[in-house]
Amino acid sequence: MSTTTQNRQFRLAARPVGLVKSSDFRLTEEAVRPPAEGEVLVRTQYISLDPAMRGWMNDVKSYVPPVGLDEVMRAGTAGEVIESKHPNFKAGDAVSGAWGVQTFGTVGGPTLTKIDTSVAPLPVYLGTLGMPGMTAYFGLLDVGQPKPGETVVVSGAAGAVGTVVGQIAKIKGCRVVGIAGGKRKCDYLVQELGFDAALDYKSGDLKSALRQACPKGVNVYFDNVGGPILDTLLTRLALKARIVICGAISQYNNEGGMEGPRNYMSLLVFRARMEGMVVFDYADQFPTAVRDMTGWMKEGKLKPREDVVTGFDRFPEALLMLFKGENLGKLVLKVD
Amino acid sequence: MSTTTQNRQFRLAARPVGLVKSSDFRLTEEAVRPPAEGEVLVRTQYISLDPAMRGWMNDVKSYVPPVGLDEVMRAGTAGEVIESKHPNFKAGDAVSGAWGVQTFGTVGGPTLTKIDTSVAPLPVYLGTLGMPGMTAYFGLLDVGQPKPGETVVVSGAAGAVGTVVGQIAKIKGCRVVGIAGGKRKCDYLVQELGFDAALDYKSGDLKSALRQACPKGVNVYFDNVGGPILDTLLTRLALKARIVICGAISQYNNEGGMEGPRNYMSLLVFRARMEGMVVFDYADQFPTAVRDMTGWMKEGKLKPREDVVTGFDRFPEALLMLFKGENLGKLVLKVD
Repeated sequence: MSTTTQNRQFRLAARPVGLVKSSDFRLTEEAVRPPAEGEVLVRTQYISLDPAMRGWMNDVKSYVPPVGLDEVMRAGTAGEVIESKHPNFKAGDAVSGAWGVQTFGTVGGPTLTKIDTSVAPLPVYLGTLGMPGMTAYFGLLDVGQPKPGETVVVSGAAGAVGTVVGQIAKIKGCRVVGIAGGKRKCDYLVQELGFDAALDYKSGDLKSALRQACPKGVNVYFDNVGGPILDTLLTRLALKARIVICGAISQYNNEGGMEGPRNYMSLLVFRARMEGMVVFDYADQFPTAVRDMTGWMKEGKLKPREDVVTGFDRFPEALLMLFKGENLGKLVLKVD
Repeated sequence: MSTTTQNRQFRLAARPVGLVKSSDFRLTEEAVRPPAEGEVLVRTQYISLDPAMRGWMNDVKSYVPPVGLDEVMRAGTAGEVIESKHPNFKAGDAVSGAWGVQTFGTVGGPTLTKIDTSVAPLPVYLGTLGMPGMTAYFGLLDVGQPKPGETVVVSGAAGAVGTVVGQIAKIKGCRVVGIAGGKRKCDYLVQELGFDAALDYKSGDLKSALRQACPKGVNVYFDNVGGPILDTLLTRLALKARIVICGAISQYNNEGGMEGPRNYMSLLVFRARMEGMVVFDYADQFPTAVRDMTGWMKEGKLKPREDVVTGFDRFPEALLMLFKGENLGKLVLKVD
């Protein structure tokens, strides 16, 4: 390849206040760096857009360090190997990794995972077979521990994690209720994914809708959103319920900081627990999950779904779509 | 006994708004009702004052029904059998139960527990060997699951539950840090009960005090208070920490409703869990706990402590002492 090829990058220009905006990023360009020994040069084809990215932009201690100012924005990625100086990879291989919001990545071989595109197309490896899918699988099964016949509720149900949580819960014999914004998403969950019910939190009284949809209470609540929806769920738990704390997308852009769940004493009333999880802890078990999930995909029980925005330059706009809840399924940016 | 004996009672006169006040109760008097077949007449000697009583006064669904307006206020009690029409009891027996804030109780035999005052004096059966002690034992051991060498923090540490939690955690080989209000309480915890440290939340910066006292983070946090102390603790957890939700005394008298823990997403960062408990669930295991705890008392490892207010008429005032944090150890009202 020509050494004059340019790498385009979105770098963090400012710590966002409230909702993220275009000016929080700076689009830069530099020459592609050729791989050193042990490294691989990859051309980016898809960039993952995840709610967690908002947290990485804050200068606070968390489960991973924040993205530094002027650094390339961190993101999950998938693409094609252009040149390899690592024995496990060769030009033409499809790989996933986390080389960030840039059109090329020059990274150590061990940070990449080889992908079999005969099993599923590339973007699925950023969604159902990627971090969101792994989060759904281990969050639901290991932390939520649903039993057949129990009622599982998931919020952010039409998103990358939520769609997979609901489908796995159905596979495990549970009654599944999704919470999402808008009729289009709710129809999709029930008609396409087989959820038992889907509640539109933007229309009507969520509390009474929840009472109707979960007459025996909620055994497992998988929370992606926090805020008032979490508070409402806390009032409808079954005894010994498990709440999986996976995210709080409704709160990430608050200027005044997070709001806490005012009804948390329901944990006492219902002898329930609320537990957080981080998907990276399960890395050594990812192969098991991928095997289960590709099996379910082949049987037609697990349907991946991506929402694709095309055009590298549209990254800030695509990220905003996520926080506005405009995506259905896994939101990815396709590098044109 | 004479049938003209009068029974004095505190009845719920109004649902409190904010802090409970004398006018929320009405002092009434009626003839003592003689026991029917299967019932026992008891003279009250001690009345238990518990933070949970504030919750019972609200007209909301919880783990027990609220006290009805005009009903005798619910309370744990201990006293002496005057007349028995139940085969398990005879006049002169010492018993504990929950016949409420009245000077006599006429109740079914099965609601009473016979007490051995050679093991410990009567008020201890409302504290360390009563509900608060059982709450501490099962909350810490079953929900908190402390391991030797771990750091256990308890708030409301100088209260009826907190003093027992800390002492059991020491017995189990943990590093124990108490949080309490004022130097007198903190000195008591360290000097009399052997806590490793006690932090006065009313003086100085709790966050930095906590960092110093728990350099490896907090493995088990037993929460009796909620509010800002819970929020501070959430920032100092160790990985896989367990938070036992036992009470939220700082929030019970809020006029604007409970405040939620704003830092609850720390559960995710630290892969921690927060779990509620209600002591009644463990009723069939109380004998095991009482056996363990009387054993520890004999070995001098568990010291009961009561704070006694004398005078039945002082009930509303004594209840207020609890919410103002004026008691050290188990607060009981002695009927003179």
